[in-house]
Amino acid sequence: MCGILGIYSNKNVSKELYYGLYAMQHRGQESCGMAVHDGKEINYKKDMGLVGDVFKTHDLEELPGTKGIAHVRYSTAGGSHMYNCQPLVGTLRKRNLGLVHNGNLVNANYLKEMLEEDGIMFSSKSDTEVILYMLARYYTGDIVEALKLTMDQIKGAYSLVILTDDELVAVRDPHGFRPLLLGKKDDEYIFASEDCEIEILGGKVIRDLEPGEIAVVKDGELKSYNFSNKCKTMKKSCIFEHVYFARNDATIDKVNVYEFRVKSGEILSQDDDVKADMVVPVPDSGWAAAIGYSNASGLPLTEALVKNRYVGRTFIKPTQEERELGVKIKLNPLSRVLQGKSIILVDDSIVRGTTSKQLVKSLRDAGASEIHLRITSPPVKYSCYYGIDTPNRSKLIAATKSIEEMKEYIGCDSLKFLDIDKMMSAVGEGNEFKFCKACFDGNYPVKKIDKEDEE
Amino acid sequence: MCGILGIYSNKNVSKELYYGLYAMQHRGQESCGMAVHDGKEINYKKDMGLVGDVFKTHDLEELPGTKGIAHVRYSTAGGSHMYNCQPLVGTLRKRNLGLVHNGNLVNANYLKEMLEEDGIMFSSKSDTEVILYMLARYYTGDIVEALKLTMDQIKGAYSLVILTDDELVAVRDPHGFRPLLLGKKDDEYIFASEDCEIEILGGKVIRDLEPGEIAVVKDGELKSYNFSNKCKTMKKSCIFEHVYFARNDATIDKVNVYEFRVKSGEILSQDDDVKADMVVPVPDSGWAAAIGYSNASGLPLTEALVKNRYVGRTFIKPTQEERELGVKIKLNPLSRVLQGKSIILVDDSIVRGTTSKQLVKSLRDAGASEIHLRITSPPVKYSCYYGIDTPNRSKLIAATKSIEEMKEYIGCDSLKFLDIDKMMSAVGEGNEFKFCKACFDGNYPVKKIDKEDEE
Amino acid sequence: MCGILGIYSNKNVSKELYYGLYAMQHRGQESCGMAVHDGKEINYKKDMGLVGDVFKTHDLEELPGTKGIAHVRYSTAGGSHMYNCQPLVGTLRKRNLGLVHNGNLVNANYLKEMLEEDGIMFSSKSDTEVILYMLARYYTGDIVEALKLTMDQIKGAYSLVILTDDELVAVRDPHGFRPLLLGKKDDEYIFASEDCEIEILGGKVIRDLEPGEIAVVKDGELKSYNFSNKCKTMKKSCIFEHVYFARNDATIDKVNVYEFRVKSGEILSQDDDVKADMVVPVPDSGWAAAIGYSNASGLPLTEALVKNRYVGRTFIKPTQEERELGVKIKLNPLSRVLQGKSIILVDDSIVRGTTSKQLVKSLRDAGASEIHLRITSPPVKYSCYYGIDTPNRSKLIAATKSIEEMKEYIGCDSLKFLDIDKMMSAVGEGNEFKFCKACFDGNYPVKKIDKEDEE
Amino acid sequence: MCGILGIYSNKNVSKELYYGLYAMQHRGQESCGMAVHDGKEINYKKDMGLVGDVFKTHDLEELPGTKGIAHVRYSTAGGSHMYNCQPLVGTLRKRNLGLVHNGNLVNANYLKEMLEEDGIMFSSKSDTEVILYMLARYYTGDIVEALKLTMDQIKGAYSLVILTDDELVAVRDPHGFRPLLLGKKDDEYIFASEDCEIEILGGKVIRDLEPGEIAVVKDGELKSYNFSNKCKTMKKSCIFEHVYFARNDATIDKVNVYEFRVKSGEILSQDDDVKADMVVPVPDSGWAAAIGYSNASGLPLTEALVKNRYVGRTFIKPTQEERELGVKIKLNPLSRVLQGKSIILVDDSIVRGTTSKQLVKSLRDAGASEIHLRITSPPVKYSCYYGIDTPNRSKLIAATKSIEEMKEYIGCDSLKFLDIDKMMSAVGEGNEFKFCKACFDGNYPVKKIDKEDEE
Repeated sequence: MCGILGIYSNKNVSKELYYGLYAMQHRGQESCGMAVHDGKEINYKKDMGLVGDVFKTHDLEELPGTKGIAHVRYSTAGGSHMYNCQPLVGTLRKRNLGLVHNGNLVNANYLKEMLEEDGIMFSSKSDTEVILYMLARYYTGDIVEALKLTMDQIKGAYSLVILTDDELVAVRDPHGFRPLLLGKKDDEYIFASEDCEIEILGGKVIRDLEPGEIAVVKDGELKSYNFSNKCKTMKKSCIFEHVYFARNDATIDKVNVYEFRVKSGEILSQDDDVKADMVVPVPDSGWAAAIGYSNASGLPLTEALVKNRYVGRTFIKPTQEERELGVKIKLNPLSRVLQGKSIILVDDSIVRGTTSKQLVKSLRDAGASEIHLRITSPPVKYSCYYGIDTPNRSKLIAATKSIEEMKEYIGCDSLKFLDIDKMMSAVGEGNEFKFCKACFDGNYPVKKIDKEDEE
Repeated sequence: MCGILGIYSNKNVSKELYYGLYAMQHRGQESCGMAVHDGKEINYKKDMGLVGDVFKTHDLEELPGTKGIAHVRYSTAGGSHMYNCQPLVGTLRKRNLGLVHNGNLVNANYLKEMLEEDGIMFSSKSDTEVILYMLARYYTGDIVEALKLTMDQIKGAYSLVILTDDELVAVRDPHGFRPLLLGKKDDEYIFASEDCEIEILGGKVIRDLEPGEIAVVKDGELKSYNFSNKCKTMKKSCIFEHVYFARNDATIDKVNVYEFRVKSGEILSQDDDVKADMVVPVPDSGWAAAIGYSNASGLPLTEALVKNRYVGRTFIKPTQEERELGVKIKLNPLSRVLQGKSIILVDDSIVRGTTSKQLVKSLRDAGASEIHLRITSPPVKYSCYYGIDTPNRSKLIAATKSIEEMKEYIGCDSLKFLDIDKMMSAVGEGNEFKFCKACFDGNYPVKKIDKEDEE
Repeated sequence: MCGILGIYSNKNVSKELYYGLYAMQHRGQESCGMAVHDGKEINYKKDMGLVGDVFKTHDLEELPGTKGIAHVRYSTAGGSHMYNCQPLVGTLRKRNLGLVHNGNLVNANYLKEMLEEDGIMFSSKSDTEVILYMLARYYTGDIVEALKLTMDQIKGAYSLVILTDDELVAVRDPHGFRPLLLGKKDDEYIFASEDCEIEILGGKVIRDLEPGEIAVVKDGELKSYNFSNKCKTMKKSCIFEHVYFARNDATIDKVNVYEFRVKSGEILSQDDDVKADMVVPVPDSGWAAAIGYSNASGLPLTEALVKNRYVGRTFIKPTQEERELGVKIKLNPLSRVLQGKSIILVDDSIVRGTTSKQLVKSLRDAGASEIHLRITSPPVKYSCYYGIDTPNRSKLIAATKSIEEMKEYIGCDSLKFLDIDKMMSAVGEGNEFKFCKACFDGNYPVKKIDKEDEE
Repeated sequence: MCGILGIYSNKNVSKELYYGLYAMQHRGQESCGMAVHDGKEINYKKDMGLVGDVFKTHDLEELPGTKGIAHVRYSTAGGSHMYNCQPLVGTLRKRNLGLVHNGNLVNANYLKEMLEEDGIMFSSKSDTEVILYMLARYYTGDIVEALKLTMDQIKGAYSLVILTDDELVAVRDPHGFRPLLLGKKDDEYIFASEDCEIEILGGKVIRDLEPGEIAVVKDGELKSYNFSNKCKTMKKSCIFEHVYFARNDATIDKVNVYEFRVKSGEILSQDDDVKADMVVPVPDSGWAAAIGYSNASGLPLTEALVKNRYVGRTFIKPTQEERELGVKIKLNPLSRVLQGKSIILVDDSIVRGTTSKQLVKSLRDAGASEIHLRITSPPVKYSCYYGIDTPNRSKLIAATKSIEEMKEYIGCDSLKFLDIDKMMSAVGEGNEFKFCKACFDGNYPVKKIDKEDEE
């Protein structure tokens, strides 16, 4: 889970990339970076931390260039290292290449071993380095040719933006797992993970990239190539973007995220006959669904959990004894409002179940008499191979427990999920087959080839 | 506008002060600090920036002590200097004093000149230094006596927590303008600006400090003193805390902030006959009122403005040409949802009007057909002398423009405010006379003595 | 032990103060700072650390002003705190004052108590704050008058540079303990602790300030005032500046430091009849004296101890077991050159004796057969009350041990000091009575009034 | 020009590597880093800046491991980039490799192109990456075999220390251009660029590595391999280490640096018949030679140039107008001592001549009547291909100017160099053929294969 961005302009782009990084900061807070081509070579800066910590005025001044790429990286367990920051940049046969990547390959280890057979070393643990070296080996001047050869071999989810000496290139994998959109602002081309980034930068959204599309901007012109005709029917956009990951103001693969979430809440309420006093969203992701639930049920919406906006990477974690304090600093319940009340607690998803458990305890301590937990997606029973940071299957609460057992574990009075068909009805008619929902149903569009990592 | 905190314990308090700083970070992001008494002297750390930037693990280790105070400072125009950070700490006659302050005096300059006549120098521009030096001149061992003499002369709004060699002392001014509460956690005493801070730290809220109260914790015992019998009838709690400043999960002077805000929205909707498609809150402060408005009007609540949580102190400001971009980075409208829609836009207050103007333009560009701006407080016509960072009167849009002129300036289709009586009905019966609402009606409980600063 | 600097110009001075800080960095590495008057108020920056760590390009840009002062502070045991950084800056009766100070008062605590009686608080532990507040209490517009009243009461060693709204003022105490010189560069006036600072900045040294002189630059003109006629005969310049503290390229009170040191080495060799193979300086302070000793004795000079230039404030100290390593990292002996050799080891002074002891062990381990330690000053038997950071008397090795006992403790084969008369002969005829040598002979020109601190 | 270090121990080595970095900081101040093997993988930290800036206590705690390598990098024009920091670390076929390198290849570009043909990308501009990838391609478990195959192809100067999963390996190129020594400390093996590093860490120097030697420490045992029998006669140790680069306390290839420098000064004085008042060293590198010159000539040694120890990477460079000031901040002449004097100015070498020119002007301004510049090495007429950071030949003053023209350019009254034979007599009989002196005589032991870079 990351955010990527590329801009091709006839003006200096570093400031615009900087604002773009802010616009996609919600997609990753672990590290960020940008690379720009100054006409001669690619210069870059990347580091651990938020955009505001990494980039200062003088950094932007030292990164001149009319085309560039940028990246934010999501914090993933165990992988928090400087060497995993993007963009990746290198030279080969006097040519410069820069690359940003969102997604996950299912055969990265396989390909890595193959490349290593040829004596190619790796300095990170990311799939991205595999893609870069695959591309580099085939790249002798024709980037489209090199990409086709590469895409023939890399399996899984990937949206890429690539910087060459002459071109800015955007690629979406044959299933279109991860989002990628094209926008324009005057003569400028923008590729971004979410349409809101394009709009915030003052651009106009043109369209989603097609599955398997290779879009090349060169000499101020956009040309588009198709990896394979098959891709047309292979579209499998990740539904979890809509469930949880994307911003409310994003529209991905024609489905608006906010509308999807509100609708999910509405649907969930329709079959629900629980008696309660109010609907309480888990901030921030549960808000839109709670609005939908409240609208459809007529139960009043109540902001009974106050989120602390300042708890970030530098927060000194509470010790074991202080743990309860840690939960409340992040999310404090309004005891006065909750006192003696029966509540519908709306959240977007349950992965491990530990956060829900702590939250339910915290609400009960604050006086809630009944807590009915409603989840606007189905139980997450399968690990994602395509870039969503779900843990190993054994850690997924829904993989090993029944709904009744989950209810017991979490400690709520009742627990309901949205079933898959109903969730899919929220994407709008005709769209339901265009989504990957493997984390819910185990139907993986692309099989895992590498052995699954133990967490 | 600041947050203050004091803890008296028999254990080390620096970690608890640290979490307390996080819990009150919303009350000020410019600077923060803490001071602890190690039994011999007062050590402290304070600096510009957020809690997470200023305090690292080793800082807490270097601040041992069983009693301490902490402070967050709100960013005020022109006053952003290291020397204004709190706590203030000093020694006098072999005694140590530390002090944190929330509020504003109306005769600080007058007192400053008086102190200067005695050869006392000032190294900051804050009222707080005046209070500290007044206190110091009277303090020869009896802190209550010294406070009474000081309170006789300082006029205006002040909530204080003071650290002496033996005591932790909390003081609320005779009108009780700024909030201050007492809590307990086992044998520990906690004083804090908001009750939620006490609760988050695991303590139990005991009560608000009374106007004019001097609460002294010494040898593990709390004793309370009354500055003057008059104070009982002088209570003038700042209504702007409820309108805008406090957290939703705070209850100040017995009025719950969240309930007040929801109620304000409800009342506002009752007289409103405008036709609209949806209610849109201005995040984050407009949410509770919008919920109230939506509930009472039956119009659906919609999250049509997405706030960027990451824009902070380190954000490189857009140039004049990039200004529009700057607005959208902070608050991006969902064009898809707004397209052709008539909206009720709910905000808590209008001060200068410039932000509202930009926001209305941004919403209109995103496709909103009609924008009806609803403010859940009356027009701010008068500067606050008691610590709310309102600008000089000439900069207050409501001081110089009629509602119709304001509507024209802001560019909305209609504009309504809550009138004062209706706002006061939201605080609950019997409470209406206990609040200062000078910024709305000009009835200043304490007259300004110093000449007003030009901004 | 500190360095001070003041510049009065008609151009911006912050860059020049910055270079001046570099030129006097050898006088103090703990903290540094500068304050400039922008025509309206005094702005400043100060922090712990070296000049290169504290000041960046943008800091200088934010400190515009045509007159300013600067300070470097020496690291003193136990006093390493942010609040002791200079310049000190404050306002009083609408007037701004800034001050930098080099020296030490003998009645600081006495005066502090007196000021505290008037309700004046202290926020640091430095004498400098006492001087500032004394000055402030008398300053109603006439800085010379205020200084005379202040100087009447402060006893001890002080060189000051003061910034007022209109003036730059330099003051040297009635005995002239600590150095202070006047220089000019075109229309610009410069006051500095050492003449080399003036020269490095491109200025011309005019003269030392006289004892008791108050030099005021106002409206581009220098006027000089005399605190008292007595001062003419009271001159007691600190001999330890020449022995150890000042740069080799300094000339203070007409005595050139380098020449003094070389001469000290020559004199020391004249009575010495020890047989040795070579003269080895303790770097860096022993070099000039070793040159003198070598020249006069005919014994070859040898650089047998290599100093590591990079060990500074950030160096992680070795643990107890690693202590020997710590010594060698700082000062490594050339074993090849020392093997079987008898050496004359030349150092400027011995204070505690611990460093000499470690050094002698290190040289012996490296193979030196005989080590004859020669000190180009007398035994330090008395604490300095005037600003040299000598420890409490009980820690001075020469206060409690005879020379023979010191030799045993240090472990050298022989030990000789320069006696007082001979040292004074190195300052040149007619100068011998103009120096304070209290640390050697206990004749304190000004008696200590405050109780001596326990270390 | 860099410093390298490797330690194989049965205890944690990070603290020892840290002290070792300090001990070799003089060999490079641009960047530094260390890598340690924790039994499973290699962790590292590296960054721009001095050791004291890059490594804090917690960094060392996060780098546990019983074997490790470390590196300091010299600042080279145009190459000051994060990506050039060492160690380089990577994985290949589930094996970890880490490498530090001192030296320069003459066929790096040639090999780079060859590797690129195989699709291998480069992310830095350093030769070191070429060596790592060459090694990686041949390494399938037998590091000695891989090194022999690599050494067959890489031409030029290289001293390496390599970290594998099981071994610590040290390599010196077949000519032994750059120094590398073996030491022991109890059961611990240490490889270092200079013997003083080993001694400072408490170890005992065993010997220099032989040209072409591959020393492997595995399972606590050292085994040594010989790349080729030819190496025995090929020894070409870099004479510039002795002339300028190494510490005075180093002994490299059996020649002590300090003794070499003193001897060079003595020899230089023997043929010199100039009349002068004193010998003045250019600090720090000219000291030892000046001692030699003074001893042999009987002219007194004088410290007439005072070096500022604090001017480093963070120093804000003076503007063009302030340039003279910049020179004096770094190196200030003692005008009092120089007044009217004729001096012998002793320096180790002249490369571009610009510094000497500025220095001569500065000394003349300070009053020196005659300046006779004496250089204890021959004119540098040829660029170094083996790692000394000499500029392109066109920038070498001695490549284009006669000695008389150089004298005119520099502005001294006379100029003499040591001729090659005389310099070589200072290394001691029998050693003269074992040194590379290509920068002086153009006899390159290994021809340059890559095209020379334009500076």
